[in-house]
Amino acid sequence: MVGTDTGNGEGFGYVTPENLGLFTDLYELTMLQGYHAADHDPRATFSLFFRRLPADRGYLLAAGLEQAMAYVEDLSFGDRAIDYLRNRGFDEDFLARLAEFEFTGTVRALPEGTPVFPDEPLLEVTAPIFQAQLFETVLLNQVGFQTLVASKAARMREAVERHGDDQSLVDFGARRSHGTDAGMKAARAAAIGGFDGTSLVAAGEEFSLPVYGTMAHSWIQSFEDEREAFEAFLDRFHEDTILLVDTYDTVEGAKLAMDVAENYDAEVGVRLDSGDLAPLSKDVAEIVGDRPIFVSSSMDEHKIADFLRDGGVATGFGPGTALTTSRDAPSLDLVYKLTEIERDGEMRPSMKLSSGKVTYPGAKSVRRVGEDGYERDILGLRGEDGPGEEQLVPIFEDGERVSDPPELGAIADRAGERRRKLPDECRALRSPATYPVEISDDLRELADDVQAELEAR
Amino acid sequence: MVGTDTGNGEGFGYVTPENLGLFTDLYELTMLQGYHAADHDPRATFSLFFRRLPADRGYLLAAGLEQAMAYVEDLSFGDRAIDYLRNRGFDEDFLARLAEFEFTGTVRALPEGTPVFPDEPLLEVTAPIFQAQLFETVLLNQVGFQTLVASKAARMREAVERHGDDQSLVDFGARRSHGTDAGMKAARAAAIGGFDGTSLVAAGEEFSLPVYGTMAHSWIQSFEDEREAFEAFLDRFHEDTILLVDTYDTVEGAKLAMDVAENYDAEVGVRLDSGDLAPLSKDVAEIVGDRPIFVSSSMDEHKIADFLRDGGVATGFGPGTALTTSRDAPSLDLVYKLTEIERDGEMRPSMKLSSGKVTYPGAKSVRRVGEDGYERDILGLRGEDGPGEEQLVPIFEDGERVSDPPELGAIADRAGERRRKLPDECRALRSPATYPVEISDDLRELADDVQAELEAR
Repeated sequence: MVGTDTGNGEGFGYVTPENLGLFTDLYELTMLQGYHAADHDPRATFSLFFRRLPADRGYLLAAGLEQAMAYVEDLSFGDRAIDYLRNRGFDEDFLARLAEFEFTGTVRALPEGTPVFPDEPLLEVTAPIFQAQLFETVLLNQVGFQTLVASKAARMREAVERHGDDQSLVDFGARRSHGTDAGMKAARAAAIGGFDGTSLVAAGEEFSLPVYGTMAHSWIQSFEDEREAFEAFLDRFHEDTILLVDTYDTVEGAKLAMDVAENYDAEVGVRLDSGDLAPLSKDVAEIVGDRPIFVSSSMDEHKIADFLRDGGVATGFGPGTALTTSRDAPSLDLVYKLTEIERDGEMRPSMKLSSGKVTYPGAKSVRRVGEDGYERDILGLRGEDGPGEEQLVPIFEDGERVSDPPELGAIADRAGERRRKLPDECRALRSPATYPVEISDDLRELADDVQAELEAR
Repeated sequence: MVGTDTGNGEGFGYVTPENLGLFTDLYELTMLQGYHAADHDPRATFSLFFRRLPADRGYLLAAGLEQAMAYVEDLSFGDRAIDYLRNRGFDEDFLARLAEFEFTGTVRALPEGTPVFPDEPLLEVTAPIFQAQLFETVLLNQVGFQTLVASKAARMREAVERHGDDQSLVDFGARRSHGTDAGMKAARAAAIGGFDGTSLVAAGEEFSLPVYGTMAHSWIQSFEDEREAFEAFLDRFHEDTILLVDTYDTVEGAKLAMDVAENYDAEVGVRLDSGDLAPLSKDVAEIVGDRPIFVSSSMDEHKIADFLRDGGVATGFGPGTALTTSRDAPSLDLVYKLTEIERDGEMRPSMKLSSGKVTYPGAKSVRRVGEDGYERDILGLRGEDGPGEEQLVPIFEDGERVSDPPELGAIADRAGERRRKLPDECRALRSPATYPVEISDDLRELADDVQAELEAR
């Protein structure tokens, strides 16, 4: 049943502008062909939202919007994509239309770095259904993942804020991320959530992130002994150098590092990557004084909090796996649902009744109430009056980008500020309190009306 | 602290041949610079292995080797990469060497689709350390993820084999995979584990996989009513069509689908995507007879097994999230460790002592004992004599590929055959028995010797 190729000429199976148009579930293209054949192209509003927070999450941080918008703006179908679809039996006039695909619609979204809660749209697309339908797969893929990682990163920053002393946080997780795109986007999302940099060089280059890293155990092992390994490293790197000291015995390694550093008159810190970290770090701190101590052994928000509560001494942490896989919550039930559809020239609210998967109809507003600290949200209908500040902002109008992409640093600042405005108990690392999201009277009434109408059929 | 860009000109943050050389942890490049500056380039063997199976896994299926080998073969540093590294302060003569990077070493590996157990190398690289060191990040990234997904897919195939009737399995998880690369590689790995195809068009094109998909709820909702939606679809698609019947009421939807199909004289199946699936599918089967019933609501191996045990009726399943995120085991503690290093012209075994992270020294053999069914493995030293069939095969010698990349279908066949040769109790979906992996006397002796030598220092 399965195919005969192991990959393209390059063998790596890249997604690039050349085949990005094909990065979609087949049903999107089948539906587009169907809409085209039926000459059925009503305007539609799709809403990207989740119905439940992952376990132990009191909020999520919206992230991934810029990649999603780059996709909406640049999506095209070149020869490679069109040829493949032709061979699959799609109609020529449909393919001609696809080859000229261009977005002409509207997008409103929560800016990246905004806290978001269940049922609130991370973004809404309003466009002819031929366009809006097609975005589903990539929008879910890009926004869901970055939102999970930004949120996970924020939990680690929260652990440092609650128990620590402004320790640095560096993404060490490229090796455990699910493929190359995940590694890149995780580094970006981690920065949004409050990380200071990444070990992933390509992400540093792509997103102008600070990049960190010095040596692995293999460096040490490749030399005759630890002293020779440290010396060989300091021969070339004299400043801001971190020596890995746990290859054989952590405390002895730290002593040796200080001894060698003194000979070289070098500024040297140490990295611990194994063992009982909190007590070990205290022993090491006795040796290295106020030089950097970097801790990188399977860290997550709970281990960071425990380490700091137990009096561990560190100037920075390098979480990896837990961060880039969002290990305790590797998936989000993000969905992209039709909430409005044009009938007889007018937009009408839409919903489906599938059990357990009800969607609030209509284009939405998300209003956040509270000045210094957030008190509650009101999920209502677009244009509705009421208290609070509207969180959804225009990104595209009539196919034109109307907001400048913010700098990543500004997104991270926004995330930090807004996260800290949430009630303290909603930011707890375990069993957080539920942040109140009210459904406005108008939205509730509309949902009841649409449901009654559907059930009456 | 964080950067100022949101991405490159294209905005999507792709990894392509242009920046793949930078998809590595900075410490790899720092070490390479250090090795270069110290004129230290001993031959080294690195082993890619994991120390523990994820929960409820009795084995894993090796996958991702072909992408890893494409990387090893094609890795290069172009102007974009070199310029970035120059700006970061790397030395010109080091960059000149990097620009001419070429692999000249040896790779031995478990062919994709081979069951693998803790401490067994999925692959071993033997090469000058300047080369072998550099591969760490991408090898872990590509092999770890595909191995997890192939193994997860095999569990779902196992559930069908144990309780079902050769139902088809289709990957529906691109939307929940962690980025685009994960979506592509998950579709490939799922095929290795026993899936019949994918919904992801780009993966179909790239890996010659069968691609499936017809319609979402939004298709139904975009029309005045369900009948009009079904009719519009059948106007264009008459054959092998699956109608989604749960938008409003599943049983009524199935009746309507059959009614419309009869008018069109069309071959139509149905898809269920919500509700209490086993009983619902029986009700639907009463209506649709032996036409296809496809079930796609948050399926995993346990839900498939329960559905089939409860007498649910389906011709196929479309798992998504659980598959492409390997949700219950989203990470594997795969490592890439130095096990041999050249000293005075000879290869010497190497290990580190970091607590809880011990690595067996030396280049390995993995021998699998048992003809019709596997009984046990023996992890020994390369070249060692003894019972069983060697599982590690040469992939590269002196930088040349010496084995043809197998077709994906052949890999999937291999995976199925070999998985079924494992003891039944090691393939249980919950709390599987431990498959015996013996450490050979020679390897144990060597490990003891090296450890004693290190501790005596």
